[in-house]
Amino acid sequence: MDLVHFQESIEAKKSLLCIGLDPVIEKLPVHLKLNTDPFYSFCAEIIESTAAYAIAFKPNFGFFESLGPSGWYTLKKVIDQIPKDCLSIADAKRGDIGNTAAAYAKAVFDSLGADAITLSPYMGKDSVLPFLEYLNKWSFVLSLTSNKGAEDFELQMLDSGMPLYRKVIEKSLEWSRDQKGILGFVAGATRIEQIEEIYRASESSYLLVPGIGAQGGDLDLLLQSVLAKDKKAIITVSRSVIYASQGEDFAEMAQNEAIKLQSAISSLIF
Amino acid sequence: MDLVHFQESIEAKKSLLCIGLDPVIEKLPVHLKLNTDPFYSFCAEIIESTAAYAIAFKPNFGFFESLGPSGWYTLKKVIDQIPKDCLSIADAKRGDIGNTAAAYAKAVFDSLGADAITLSPYMGKDSVLPFLEYLNKWSFVLSLTSNKGAEDFELQMLDSGMPLYRKVIEKSLEWSRDQKGILGFVAGATRIEQIEEIYRASESSYLLVPGIGAQGGDLDLLLQSVLAKDKKAIITVSRSVIYASQGEDFAEMAQNEAIKLQSAISSLIF
Repeated sequence: MDLVHFQESIEAKKSLLCIGLDPVIEKLPVHLKLNTDPFYSFCAEIIESTAAYAIAFKPNFGFFESLGPSGWYTLKKVIDQIPKDCLSIADAKRGDIGNTAAAYAKAVFDSLGADAITLSPYMGKDSVLPFLEYLNKWSFVLSLTSNKGAEDFELQMLDSGMPLYRKVIEKSLEWSRDQKGILGFVAGATRIEQIEEIYRASESSYLLVPGIGAQGGDLDLLLQSVLAKDKKAIITVSRSVIYASQGEDFAEMAQNEAIKLQSAISSLIF
Repeated sequence: MDLVHFQESIEAKKSLLCIGLDPVIEKLPVHLKLNTDPFYSFCAEIIESTAAYAIAFKPNFGFFESLGPSGWYTLKKVIDQIPKDCLSIADAKRGDIGNTAAAYAKAVFDSLGADAITLSPYMGKDSVLPFLEYLNKWSFVLSLTSNKGAEDFELQMLDSGMPLYRKVIEKSLEWSRDQKGILGFVAGATRIEQIEEIYRASESSYLLVPGIGAQGGDLDLLLQSVLAKDKKAIITVSRSVIYASQGEDFAEMAQNEAIKLQSAISSLIF
């Protein structure tokens, strides 16, 4: 999806909401567990009931891969189910040397047909560049993530006087010049004190912001930030929407949660 | 595979050779391309012809995933084909927050049945720990990789006076205490000047060492290192073995290359 169509979708839906698809067998509604492909049935119903209020869906590869080889078929079907006016974000956090990175890009953009991917920058330029070469495909590079482990390396100060996550932003921007793809960053909502700094450092790139809800990030605080006002925050919520109910009404309850979130976003930003 | 069995395998085969399985359709022998599953036919023949000289095989997930959903079935069949006296290393470079990391661990260790995985440490402790909780499963954490991009972040100096890749080693060792899994590190053979330092810093952990051959690393230099003498280097060679010939004799020529490498290792180390 190109930038203009994504912006149009944001305006049309008055939303910045991205729904994370993290299916876990123990948490699925009981009546779905006997289906041939419970993860697909679950995700398809969630997508259908919430798509009017969301501008992106983010299937998390780990949960699908935990099914073993059939998981990638499920993933493909789920990605196919995401409406064209929503960004489909492959939350895969890939990162490897050049020729392997190119293979991962082919897997996610060509074979699975996703619009976007999350990338781990540890191995540097050649692990990111092959993704940026795809026209109008999106690469969200991990900068400062929402988890406790972010302190171990991401927040470490370099002797150049800049923390690692800032160096990642600086370098990624450099690599993305003259590329056909769209660069964004992952920045956790639990790091609210750094998120505006990240947004400025990223030269107003789109930020994929997980961490609202189960992980403890505060939506109201996030909505007061410049990146929300600029409509450049892709606010990702997973567990608190998709597991709003584990009963037969799960899709309806997920929709209610999505509506609440979209209303909160819409009333402050649009 | 536990440590004792791996050491026994190294002694029995007088080898430290790991063969990287990086199938690419353009490089496969023509006569295989019409098979139902050319990647499987290719890898199965390579494994069969070289297993007597290797102590590990390392299928690289990117290349299998580039096939789309069927790739994971191929991957499962290839991993099943790796003999029990060889370590099967899932070169997947996963790394995500705790609950997702646990799902990736389940995917690779339980569903695919691999002995080992490569991990990207960017997101810190909770992205690595779930893998270390598996009894006798191996986690090779990226430290200093063989690619050019290693300079971007891995070699950056922290203000604590230590480069990032050393901090990764220090932290990973801390996390692995009292865990049931086995910790190792990935250290590129192109970084020969740092590899003994990495080995010491890792408290003599096994190092998975790619970069010999197509990437320019020097086998003789590596074999003179302490980690080779200690039989703690898992020397990974991919393209120069598996693409030794693209004719019908590819498996035989791969075997010849594997024999050459095993002989070089054996004559200096055993």
